[in-house]
Amino acid sequence: MGEARRIIPVILSGGAGSRLWPLSIPTRPKQLLALTGAESMLQQTARRVTDRTRFEAPIIVASAAHANEIETQLAAAGAALSLLILEPSARSTAPAIALAAFVAASDDILLVMPSDHVVKDEEAFRAAIEIALPLAEQGWLVTFGIAPGRPETGYGYIERGADLPGGGHEVKAFVEKPKREAAAAFLAGGRHDWNGGIFLFRAADFIAALQTHAPDIHAAVAASIAGAIRSDGRLLPDVDRFAASPSLSVDYAVMEKAGRIAVVPVDMGWSDVGSWDALHEIGAKDGRGNLIAGDVLALDTRNCLIRGEGTRIVAVGVEDLIVIAAGDSVLIVPRGQSQRVREAVEALGRRAEEGDG
Amino acid sequence: MGEARRIIPVILSGGAGSRLWPLSIPTRPKQLLALTGAESMLQQTARRVTDRTRFEAPIIVASAAHANEIETQLAAAGAALSLLILEPSARSTAPAIALAAFVAASDDILLVMPSDHVVKDEEAFRAAIEIALPLAEQGWLVTFGIAPGRPETGYGYIERGADLPGGGHEVKAFVEKPKREAAAAFLAGGRHDWNGGIFLFRAADFIAALQTHAPDIHAAVAASIAGAIRSDGRLLPDVDRFAASPSLSVDYAVMEKAGRIAVVPVDMGWSDVGSWDALHEIGAKDGRGNLIAGDVLALDTRNCLIRGEGTRIVAVGVEDLIVIAAGDSVLIVPRGQSQRVREAVEALGRRAEEGDG
Repeated sequence: MGEARRIIPVILSGGAGSRLWPLSIPTRPKQLLALTGAESMLQQTARRVTDRTRFEAPIIVASAAHANEIETQLAAAGAALSLLILEPSARSTAPAIALAAFVAASDDILLVMPSDHVVKDEEAFRAAIEIALPLAEQGWLVTFGIAPGRPETGYGYIERGADLPGGGHEVKAFVEKPKREAAAAFLAGGRHDWNGGIFLFRAADFIAALQTHAPDIHAAVAASIAGAIRSDGRLLPDVDRFAASPSLSVDYAVMEKAGRIAVVPVDMGWSDVGSWDALHEIGAKDGRGNLIAGDVLALDTRNCLIRGEGTRIVAVGVEDLIVIAAGDSVLIVPRGQSQRVREAVEALGRRAEEGDG
Repeated sequence: MGEARRIIPVILSGGAGSRLWPLSIPTRPKQLLALTGAESMLQQTARRVTDRTRFEAPIIVASAAHANEIETQLAAAGAALSLLILEPSARSTAPAIALAAFVAASDDILLVMPSDHVVKDEEAFRAAIEIALPLAEQGWLVTFGIAPGRPETGYGYIERGADLPGGGHEVKAFVEKPKREAAAAFLAGGRHDWNGGIFLFRAADFIAALQTHAPDIHAAVAASIAGAIRSDGRLLPDVDRFAASPSLSVDYAVMEKAGRIAVVPVDMGWSDVGSWDALHEIGAKDGRGNLIAGDVLALDTRNCLIRGEGTRIVAVGVEDLIVIAAGDSVLIVPRGQSQRVREAVEALGRRAEEGDG
């Protein structure tokens, strides 16, 4: 056997994570928070690809506002960083991934990962990568299909098509967030997986598909990289040229349109921790079903998620509640309704605007 | 008709009010807080007796720790103050009232009132005082019997005996906090009123009863007044002599034992605001049953009491909850369980001790 092919991880750190307000705020988004342990989700993501027999040091694509914090967190985790690409503006995932693809060599294999997902079974993830790698080397754009654990209506789904060698499948269709009945049918049928936004492909193949299906993005990102400034391990693409790119997700711009799209199913204890309810669900709870962190006194309290940062939370006789203190705010919402945090964040935004007016 | 007899109000400001934690804390107890409007409960109590045709300027008995705040609040309310007696230590109500009785002239009529009660119908209170005054002038120690609104088990009750002229009654018995069934029977029978700790009597009559039934208190307080220091409208009784007094309530030390005890029933919209639930009950709620104050955003929230001071509270989809932010803490307890705040305060105290040890 020859030397193992090395993969360049590309970690996307562009999310704002307003669904985890008040802990997650624009200056300190979800991926930079220690939500599920002592380390931040970015640190955990970087640690997942530290095996140097398989992975190069990662490229991270992030906002300039978080550059110092990202470098500090990676250093604290003892994780290497090959390049920090500073997105000049938020343009969704297709341009962000394109930045990394243009920086890489044509022949490099890129493993694209969001920075704010939980993967409990890293062995399963590694095994799926081993299945995906030969497909990527044959020119497939490979997505990883997350084993669906419930009829979730908040995610996109990937329908499996014809089998490919080694355990992957051609993608038959990408399905946007389905209705409840469709999601239940997907779960029962066993041919649909969640689209977790994790990809493996050769840089040149992605760029070629981008040029075909999203030429405006291709042109804008190529130009912004041509005019980029590099210093101290950071790359700042040209601001105005990047701003000319359409803002599109990689699914919409490329994956749903290109040929040779494969899916490798993987059951790896995945969660996008997309809500406080999700965090309660995946976390290690005490004997009363509580997940408690920070400065909290909970008496006779059951099935609650309580985090106290900055403000001490004292709960007595409370059940099925989410209570999050951070900064100068405390959020209180019943368990099962944490997606409504967006309503609150929007209302606070309107209030702030009215206060300014 | 001769000139109306003038009464000296004696306002007792010794309570700690831990049941309204975290807003009420030892340095800022319940009576100094604006719980039911723009003014503190002490300010409202002082305003209740500003009619100079009937009342002298009040004597206030309070802890030295609150002296400046009390003087500031009374000045802000435009309420006079004849004397601020600084309790050298907390010895319950019998010694506190005795301090005022020894300072007054023998013939003075004293109206003793807690500083932290709500009286919505001040006309009814004034009318009851007019009934009580001739009784006090005849040597009765008069209590005011609060019309019971529910079979409350947390209060003491007063049983009415024989009628006295004008609408009062001899007291047949003082009843300590009753069981549920007894409280229901009291409510149905119409002969029992709540003991609200409001009294009217001649100073000399109280002192005589104290000498007979609690001679240790009488001796200690008399000695502490003999050694008192007076300056700038404040009186500081001798610390060591006062400390020698037993710590007893006026009910236990005097009222339950002395002869010539009368009760004047009064229905005056009274509340001791003894819990967050009580505050929710008496307060002016919005159309959804919420009583909200301070920095609060409440979306789709019903039948809640929410106060945000220092920390912004954001509640979404919440019902029947009490949420109080003050200082560095937030309390969360279901409506109907706010008496359990004591458990939390005690647990925090133990935690603080363990932290010190």
